[in-house]
Amino acid sequence: MENSPTQPPRMNGAESLVHTLIGNGLKVCFANPGTSEMHFVAALDRIPGLRCIPGQQENVVTGMADGYGRVAREPSVTLLHCGPGLANGLANLHNARKARSPVLNIVGDQATYHAQYEPPLAMDTVKVAETVSHWVRTARDTAQLGADAAEAVQAARKAPGQIATLIVPSDISWNEGGVVAPRLPALAVRPFDVAKLRAAATILKEKSNVLLLLGDEALTHAAQQHAARIQAKTGCRVMAESINGLQARGTGRLPLERVPYPAAMAIDRLKDVEHIICVGSRPPVGFFAYPGVPSHHAPETASVTVLAQPGQDLVEALDALAQDIGAPRTTVFDTGRRPEVPHGAPSSEGFGALLGAVIPDDAIVVDEAITFGTFMFPGSYAARPHDWMMVTGGAIGYGMPAATGAAVAGKGRRVLNIQADGSAMYTIQSLWTQARERLPVTTVIINNRKYQILIGEYYAVGANPGPTAMNMLDLGNPDMDFVKMARGFGVEAARATTLEDCARLMQHSYKQPGPFLIELMV
Amino acid sequence: MENSPTQPPRMNGAESLVHTLIGNGLKVCFANPGTSEMHFVAALDRIPGLRCIPGQQENVVTGMADGYGRVAREPSVTLLHCGPGLANGLANLHNARKARSPVLNIVGDQATYHAQYEPPLAMDTVKVAETVSHWVRTARDTAQLGADAAEAVQAARKAPGQIATLIVPSDISWNEGGVVAPRLPALAVRPFDVAKLRAAATILKEKSNVLLLLGDEALTHAAQQHAARIQAKTGCRVMAESINGLQARGTGRLPLERVPYPAAMAIDRLKDVEHIICVGSRPPVGFFAYPGVPSHHAPETASVTVLAQPGQDLVEALDALAQDIGAPRTTVFDTGRRPEVPHGAPSSEGFGALLGAVIPDDAIVVDEAITFGTFMFPGSYAARPHDWMMVTGGAIGYGMPAATGAAVAGKGRRVLNIQADGSAMYTIQSLWTQARERLPVTTVIINNRKYQILIGEYYAVGANPGPTAMNMLDLGNPDMDFVKMARGFGVEAARATTLEDCARLMQHSYKQPGPFLIELMV
Repeated sequence: MENSPTQPPRMNGAESLVHTLIGNGLKVCFANPGTSEMHFVAALDRIPGLRCIPGQQENVVTGMADGYGRVAREPSVTLLHCGPGLANGLANLHNARKARSPVLNIVGDQATYHAQYEPPLAMDTVKVAETVSHWVRTARDTAQLGADAAEAVQAARKAPGQIATLIVPSDISWNEGGVVAPRLPALAVRPFDVAKLRAAATILKEKSNVLLLLGDEALTHAAQQHAARIQAKTGCRVMAESINGLQARGTGRLPLERVPYPAAMAIDRLKDVEHIICVGSRPPVGFFAYPGVPSHHAPETASVTVLAQPGQDLVEALDALAQDIGAPRTTVFDTGRRPEVPHGAPSSEGFGALLGAVIPDDAIVVDEAITFGTFMFPGSYAARPHDWMMVTGGAIGYGMPAATGAAVAGKGRRVLNIQADGSAMYTIQSLWTQARERLPVTTVIINNRKYQILIGEYYAVGANPGPTAMNMLDLGNPDMDFVKMARGFGVEAARATTLEDCARLMQHSYKQPGPFLIELMV
Repeated sequence: MENSPTQPPRMNGAESLVHTLIGNGLKVCFANPGTSEMHFVAALDRIPGLRCIPGQQENVVTGMADGYGRVAREPSVTLLHCGPGLANGLANLHNARKARSPVLNIVGDQATYHAQYEPPLAMDTVKVAETVSHWVRTARDTAQLGADAAEAVQAARKAPGQIATLIVPSDISWNEGGVVAPRLPALAVRPFDVAKLRAAATILKEKSNVLLLLGDEALTHAAQQHAARIQAKTGCRVMAESINGLQARGTGRLPLERVPYPAAMAIDRLKDVEHIICVGSRPPVGFFAYPGVPSHHAPETASVTVLAQPGQDLVEALDALAQDIGAPRTTVFDTGRRPEVPHGAPSSEGFGALLGAVIPDDAIVVDEAITFGTFMFPGSYAARPHDWMMVTGGAIGYGMPAATGAAVAGKGRRVLNIQADGSAMYTIQSLWTQARERLPVTTVIINNRKYQILIGEYYAVGANPGPTAMNMLDLGNPDMDFVKMARGFGVEAARATTLEDCARLMQHSYKQPGPFLIELMV
């Protein structure tokens, strides 16, 4: 290290940290800094190479990092302030963790000698970090901070993608004696198990009612081609998990049905399944438990074979399986005809067809439509090729920041954020970053003025919601006006009341260099 | 318990929980429920007695509970959804903890038998709760849930106020066999130590350069009268801690200087102090550490005597101390003349005088003005009597929800939320609850379009912020329009550019039954 040509003669910890992050290939820093990060901010001023993008609240920052990580398949840096700042960003780190999105958090904290006095912001930052992180370290030595950072980057990159959190006390940042650390090699990927391959092949060859259940990297375009070969050879059913971090869709990709979210629908759809082959997926379980409803949604009697797990090479595993069973080298499948723009009052099915018609080439769809999205998915099987993201950890408020981060990673790809109103209110501040960075995000707010999903869940409890319940589940009174709000954040906006209005405004938005918001009244 | 006359013959866990909370004297539930809380919501429908107030994001919910607890000196219930919902509310629970505000969190969670399958929302909820709670329990038995709740209420009420978190798996809620638990007795308050009283009295009688440093309950009107007696007798200096949960101010209360926030100012102001007597306070330490600046802001050589700590009876302790040193039974002090409404461009000093002129009788001021507030405090010594709240835990985004909760507890008292723009963006959704509940909150947004405090902290690092830093510290580009945003949430709003405009709009707002927002351009 001492002989590295990039090592200036003398630098503080923060400078060694920034040099190391840049040298390790990181490109983007999503930031909401505070006092304990000021030396890091000052170092960013002096050392070019990281694009810094501010967010107005930490769950916006971490949500942007999640969206970025899913699209770029590379970590970004988040810059967060002490325990409470990290705490504000936990929910979207939870979503990122479940999406297996790589994220590196840098959390500034109290100086090592000062924390004992319990100043107002002091919190058990390690404990907060541990609730969402695969890797946590508190830097204790300025000379080691660069090496800590290189390890943190390596941990974030560990397949299939991890949350790494490096806590940096302010004196470790400001002290002189920083040392830049070189990039560490990627951690080895565990090869898939040939015995599992043989078992899966035997089932596919000998059994019927087989479900090939895809998740994670098995939902990429390349993996889907191999799944299609297996399906063509054996006639097995192929489905996607209920909720996915990123799924390739549209013409040329499989018209992949997802395991339904509602328990009754999932159980019905899976009732004939006798064998499940999991590739980057797990056997379907309920999002929640309900009285008298089983946790597992496939029949108890169904066999489960895990061909490969997230972090293993799922494309290679599917290819090997296809070869093993003698599937054709390529196959052709039909996703149907691209729909026309539908007309009339918005409905979930109608909106699905609208998406099928207007999703532009290579778009990224960020779906936090919640209830409105139930029937939205099939309509876009025949859309132009695109990627589709969902709220993997169930923590609402992911859509708007994830769309923002996806647009940063997308380098000009149009992002469509289909966004429920109640969830939008969690991280509406994302609009400001979209405007500031002039990001090509089209947001469609599905404004039904209620937490519709919870009204459904209330009915599932077995009663009609009374006035107290409706007071908590209704988002009207006062009605929110998302057009006014968006303009308050500097984002142009308009309202639509029909599907054709919405389609016209979406197509208008694609010609804008920056963000645009459509409030669709449903 | 079985013979309790309020015990219906058969109820589920959720019903026993609601009955127990109401029977234990709780009045208000701030809520952002999800599926795992639906049986609790259904029980609230059937059992009258808790006022339910929704918030659009959990940090709004917990911030409302903090504001409510500081004013009512009684816990409210928060209703939160699983680990991620609780995580979203941690920052304001951290502030509540530091304010010693009593709060009872009810967190719904996965069914006991379902959590093992790691559904999307599964998180280590206990670990999340432990980061801010004094008391945490996961209910494990429907028959015990009522008793768990009664203990949780008792814990929240423990002097001076605690954060209690009861995690309720959904099956514990929905199973039959709930039992209502009666109210538990208040936990005993530790009496103050007579030896400490003698030590403090000796110092006051024999020493000079004594600082009587007040915090917590020692900042109530009653406690201040005794502090004034001690001051009248001995000539000691009396100050308030730098940051306080609730302080009685205005005519008839002490014109209490706070220990300054900036380290250099605090060290200078305290440099002559030889003896500190702490009453509900701690010796002043820095909010952050800075290179070469001591953590303790009073001289190292100053003696420290803790007369009594938060949770002990601080009013009684101060009265006993006053008696012991032979102070007069009452004393008169002058807070000066109430200022006139100032004119011209807004400044921190000018805004302080404006507050002195226009704070209405018995108002609650919620101060999250951050930098703009530095010189705001002295101007309002001679205002009409009022209470003043601050961001105790340093986690920004407390002001708007705390003002909302304070208005609920205030039962008609006008709440003035003096709110920095950057911090406002953390929990701006609070406006919707203010509009829905028609709460008498006047919000003054101090719009300087930047994180001014961080620009100051950057200069403290020793350099001028460059373009990368300013990109992260500037809130313009695009400029936010808080008037549009407020209207988007259903709150009437107007913009002021001069102090006299602002005063006129504030006085206009007092005549409204509900909320009003003023965007003050500075």
